[in-house]
This record gives sequence, structure tokens and C-alpha cells, in this order.
Amino acid sequence: MSLLVTGSIGLDTVETPTGRREGIIGGSAIYFSYAASFFSPVRLVGVVGDDCPPDFFNIFNGRQVDLGGLEVRKGSKTFRWHGSYLKDMNEAVTVKVDLNVLAEQAPRIPPAFRDSRDVFLANTHPVLQQRMIDCLTGAKLIVADTMNLWIQTERPELLKLLGRIHGLVLNDGEARMLTGEKNLVAAAREVLKLGPNFVVVKKGEHGCMMCYEGGIFVLPAFPTAQVIDPTGAGDSFAGGMMGYLATQDSWSPATIKRALAFGTILASFTISDFSLAGLQRATRAQIDQRCAEFKEAMSF
Amino acid sequence: MSLLVTGSIGLDTVETPTGRREGIIGGSAIYFSYAASFFSPVRLVGVVGDDCPPDFFNIFNGRQVDLGGLEVRKGSKTFRWHGSYLKDMNEAVTVKVDLNVLAEQAPRIPPAFRDSRDVFLANTHPVLQQRMIDCLTGAKLIVADTMNLWIQTERPELLKLLGRIHGLVLNDGEARMLTGEKNLVAAAREVLKLGPNFVVVKKGEHGCMMCYEGGIFVLPAFPTAQVIDPTGAGDSFAGGMMGYLATQDSWSPATIKRALAFGTILASFTISDFSLAGLQRATRAQIDQRCAEFKEAMSF
Repeated sequence: MSLLVTGSIGLDTVETPTGRREGIIGGSAIYFSYAASFFSPVRLVGVVGDDCPPDFFNIFNGRQVDLGGLEVRKGSKTFRWHGSYLKDMNEAVTVKVDLNVLAEQAPRIPPAFRDSRDVFLANTHPVLQQRMIDCLTGAKLIVADTMNLWIQTERPELLKLLGRIHGLVLNDGEARMLTGEKNLVAAAREVLKLGPNFVVVKKGEHGCMMCYEGGIFVLPAFPTAQVIDPTGAGDSFAGGMMGYLATQDSWSPATIKRALAFGTILASFTISDFSLAGLQRATRAQIDQRCAEFKEAMSF
Repeated sequence: MSLLVTGSIGLDTVETPTGRREGIIGGSAIYFSYAASFFSPVRLVGVVGDDCPPDFFNIFNGRQVDLGGLEVRKGSKTFRWHGSYLKDMNEAVTVKVDLNVLAEQAPRIPPAFRDSRDVFLANTHPVLQQRMIDCLTGAKLIVADTMNLWIQTERPELLKLLGRIHGLVLNDGEARMLTGEKNLVAAAREVLKLGPNFVVVKKGEHGCMMCYEGGIFVLPAFPTAQVIDPTGAGDSFAGGMMGYLATQDSWSPATIKRALAFGTILASFTISDFSLAGLQRATRAQIDQRCAEFKEAMSF
């Protein structure tokens, strides 16, 4: 029951057709941790600069998120991202990105975190992801995310990473890019040959697909009439998934399927408002209720 | 148990990354009838020219498709469509279209067909669709398809049609165009306000969504590693759906949901080969088997 996440922490500026927010809390590790903490304690590993507002992490007050791996680096600046969904709610256009502290040395994993059983390596350079694995000697389930940049520029290192993880989470375009297969089912099957025991392909508003040696699992997205801000949906999805898996004793396909359903539900809360506001309003009872509605919306 | 379909019958030329076929049998009424005939007898209403190959309709030999509403018009030419999927397997580019006989007078519905209980009006001019309804005085379930062209150019007539049908089937882009709503759930709900009791939004490789007064139903597509030719997928989907509904005594949401699952499965057979070859290889037992696999691929 020890889930660790490494990923970005940032100050986001987001524009959507319904509004604009500046300097709001964001980053993969933030969304992931909040979503996962509905199910399991979470150990967060990440780094910010000393420009980070002091009340930034109050968001985790009262939640089972251990900030022992959070580094506030003197003289550095926090990662900033400015994205726009004005053109397309399904794909952010990056207006501006300042890597800042993320371009410096990676945060260290505290010794007390090194026995973590479940690990999620949010998207970052595959060499860094491998270094994290080197430290996490107690890990039994390692799942990683990646992105088009590394597929294009760091393929050899990415392939090494794929040989060392149990699950890969990526989006549909990335799965196609990684394998050269246009058909998504074929692409997912090709990913399995590169190492992971299972691959989860995120399709945004169209749901997700999970491929494993013995078969395939498909899920639509939770049907939502209003999307306010899609930022963090994929990381919340991963958080819901890993948070649930961290409470389980085995990772059978049936277990992973339930985990993906929870991931889908957590993402649906995230997109209902800016930043973490949607997740902050959610309760575990509401999550279970929405999961039951989701099941009903697919049953025939 | 009397299902009638009116729609196009054509000679298609199709190009996909896996090959090219010329002068193959196609058209909405053809795909629909073949798919529906796995469940229910079908009455086909359509028109071809006298250039139509004499063995064209042998395809229905031994199947429960009544060709009493098929007109072979002297001196006219059969509808021809040339489409290409070389650029995108999910969207046909029309290379050439010759409406020919479809630009002339519509086929008549034979008196013996006028008591049909279930009716599917495949995509054509909404004025023609309404004229069909005028003749079909025994119809209890009328479902129609439409297209972007009529949404843009014949909105008043289309709106009249929507007030006279029970179900509308259209694709995601058309639902957005018809309602001005970008979000698909919101768009589907807006369609309901225009008249139909239920609306089915087809999303191609991403499955479908059905909206009705009391709720929503979402289904992914059947996961397939190889798509040979997507032509006719939507019409086969409608055929499977209506064929199943024609065997039922009521049209509760639960019944329509099962019908949509069958539609999804029929479409998966169609896209596995050119023209009707995929459907021709299917058996009812295989359809039921694949439907069970589909259910399994979504269960959590």
C-alpha cells in the first residue's frame, strides 16, 4: 500500500472557451496525487522553485499525500505552462512553456520512499525515468507515461525504459507514433512486444483501451455534457487507476479493468472545472456513485 | 416483424491502403438489408438503372430480403460512387459521384409493403423521406439517417422530418452541425428537443452514443486490429440495430441498447473486407459470439 509518483508540479495559465485562469496549480504529479489519494496514500516526488506560493500545497491538507519528496529549490523557478483550448477542447495548444527547475537536476527520492511497491513515472525524459527505477528497489508495479518528444528524439532510451516497466500509459497519437501502426489495436499489440505487460491507450473524449497478452479492454469516456478545462485529465486518469491498483494484492486484467474505470471517473471530475476544483468537490461516495452510473451507461 | 428500408443502391469504386475494387455492390439499402436480414425479414425499396448487372442481387439469394420494392428503371443509369480512404481510414474522400437514377423520381413503395411496422429511411432528401412516411401508414417505429448536406441546405424540411420520426441516426460531425453544440452529449440532448424519442450518434472507430429522455448510453467500437474497407459500416450498424428491433415487441431503452450492440458487431464484420464480403462470411452464431466477446471487452 505504498504508491509513489514522480512528475511535474507547475503554475499553469489556461484558456478555454468558458474562461481563463492564471497561475493555478497544475502539473502531472499534482493531478495524479490528488486523484490517487481517494484510494490510497501517495508519496509525491517533485521539485518547485522558491517562487512557489507558500500556500500552494495546502491543497493536500487533510489528504493522504506525503510531501516528503517535495523539494523547494532555492534560487530556482517553478515550471510554468500556458495552454489554450480555444481552438479545440480535445487538444491543448501550448502558448508558452518555461521548464525552469524541470530543466535542472531531477528531485531525489527520499530513502524512506524507496520501498514503494507501486510506482507511477509521469512523463519526463526516459533517462530520468530509468534513474528513478534504479532507486526504487522495492517496486513491484511500475507504470510510466511518455510523450511524442521522447518517441521522436530519445527512442533508444525509451525502448530501454519499456523493457523495465510493467505498464505503459500513452495517448493514441503517441501509440501510433511509437509503433508506426495506424490501427490503434494493432499499435497497442506492438507496444506489448516492446516490453510492458500491459499498455493503456488514452483517447481523450473517446475513452481508453487496454491491451495485455490475453486480450483487450475498451472503455468509452464518461459522458459529460460540459467540459470546463481538460487539463490534467490524463494524469487524473492515471492517478485513479494507480490509486485503485495500490489497494489490490494482484494485478490481474480484471483488476486493471476496474482500475481503468476508476481512472475514467476521476478524469471526469477533473474536467468539470479548472485546476483541481473539480476533484476537490468530489467525495469517494460520489466517485463510486458515478462509477455505477458509468457501468449502467454501457450495459446491454 | 416487417422491417422496411429505403435507401441507395450503387456501384462503388473503393480505394483503401490495402487495395482497390471497381464496380462493387454498395449503397445504404444494400448494407442495411444484408445486416438486418440476420435478425428479421427485410423489405427493400430502391431503384437502379438498366445498366445494373443482372447478377447484382444474387447476393440476397437464400436470405430473407424481399426485393418487391426494387425498381430497375429502363433508360436510367445506376448510382455510382468512387471513394478513397488512402488519406484517412476514418473518413472517405469522394473522388467522384454520379447520382444518375437517384437524381430522378424516387422509387415507389409497393402497396404490399405499406403495412411495415419498422421503417428505416436511409439518408436522402428530407422531403423524400417525408413522402415515404406519408405512404407508410402502419409504421410504429420510424428511424431516419441524414447528412451534412441537408443540415446545411434543407434545414426547414429536415426539422419537419424530425417531428415525424421516433429515432435519428447521424454521425458526430452532423450532430454538432445540426445543433451548433460542440460537446457531443449536449448536442445529442439538443437533437431530442427537435422531435425524436432517441438519437444515435455514430463516432466511427470510437463507437456510438445513444441519448433518450431518461439518459444516455455509450459504446466503444468493437476493437479490430485490421480494417480493410470502412464503406457501409454506418449502414450495417443501422441494419443490425433495426433488424434486432424488428424482432422485439417494445422499444425500451434497454432494448435499443442491445440493438446498438448488435449494430456495432455487424459493422465490425462489414469493415473486415470490401463490399459485402465480410457480412457474407458471417453467421448468426458468429455474431452472437462476437457480441459476447464485446461485452466481455467492456466488463469491469
